[in-house]
Amino acid sequence: MAFRVSAQTYTYVSHVLGVVAAIHPVLMLIGFIILGGEAIISYKALPWGKDVKKLIHLVLHAIALILGIIGVYTAFKFHNESGIANLYSLHSWLGIGTICLYGVQWLYGFLVFFFPGGSTALRSDSLPWHVLFGMFVYVLAVCSAVLGFLEKLTFLENSGLYKYGPEAFLVNFTAIVTTLYGAFVVFSAVTPDRVVDDFSYSSI
Amino acid sequence: MAFRVSAQTYTYVSHVLGVVAAIHPVLMLIGFIILGGEAIISYKALPWGKDVKKLIHLVLHAIALILGIIGVYTAFKFHNESGIANLYSLHSWLGIGTICLYGVQWLYGFLVFFFPGGSTALRSDSLPWHVLFGMFVYVLAVCSAVLGFLEKLTFLENSGLYKYGPEAFLVNFTAIVTTLYGAFVVFSAVTPDRVVDDFSYSSI
Repeated sequence: MAFRVSAQTYTYVSHVLGVVAAIHPVLMLIGFIILGGEAIISYKALPWGKDVKKLIHLVLHAIALILGIIGVYTAFKFHNESGIANLYSLHSWLGIGTICLYGVQWLYGFLVFFFPGGSTALRSDSLPWHVLFGMFVYVLAVCSAVLGFLEKLTFLENSGLYKYGPEAFLVNFTAIVTTLYGAFVVFSAVTPDRVVDDFSYSSI
Repeated sequence: MAFRVSAQTYTYVSHVLGVVAAIHPVLMLIGFIILGGEAIISYKALPWGKDVKKLIHLVLHAIALILGIIGVYTAFKFHNESGIANLYSLHSWLGIGTICLYGVQWLYGFLVFFFPGGSTALRSDSLPWHVLFGMFVYVLAVCSAVLGFLEKLTFLENSGLYKYGPEAFLVNFTAIVTTLYGAFVVFSAVTPDRVVDDFSYSSI
């Protein structure tokens, strides 16, 4: 038994989907979702040494996080200037929660894996949790983005936008491409680095 | 290095979250999301033999799928009887897509792992894909459900429901508990059966 598709393959698909989603740019989409995805992929797929990859991984995540926070700030600013209520919708709740967890994850990763760095035992114990929690937060981020697409489009449709028009389809297709992008980022993170034959499930 | 929390622990949390979400029952939520989650957990966590667990796994998934299809049918029926447009929203697109993929996954699993059953090589090659694709479809299902909560609540709020009232909070909290339930179902599926010490990452 083997995963006969390597993580590398998933990273190619992720990139194609990322480019397709970014054709119609939104700050949160390119800044947070795609950069965050690239940060995850980079650690898996780049050909360089561990230290270089780690630096790229943490810098990309830092940029994604900062742009995400700017995105949240501009949302509040837009709401306040337009007299729209804040923090009542699931999109806002999940989005704020995601940004907070993203920050916690980044800080823990920085302290334990980069500077000052934990003991070998702590790093080794933390790594699978770093991966698992990272995947969880990233899926939440994609979920929040998709909720944002739906919410914004519903508002526009309630204000008269044609439900089957090109704008509506553009938003929905961008959301679907974003979902697929997120899925392939996760696939590339959870599958083995190389195609192997010695990785077997015992429960078959 | 080890996952010092076993899959079993995640299944307990999943059940508590499932019960909390189900206090406010919705056909799609109990029928599709929670039963589907239980189907995933059952294969991992029940103490019985493989054949019994497999039967429970496939029967629970079959019930979840059938209830999901009934849910889709009733959505169309409700729309048609109320003069509401069909299939324009991201919730509907992702939901229909999820149900179709769920059906494909169930059918493949039935044919390969149950009856008539594939060769040992085919089963063994298929199993990691069955798990990976199953997780993907399940996360999509949870995403679709959460989109449904947001969409329905946005409609209600546009019709005058108070944005910070108890009904709105109830919907949002149910959606968040559903998200956490889905996350713990996935955690219980992807973590090792028992706490082990011989499971190491090479990339630390």
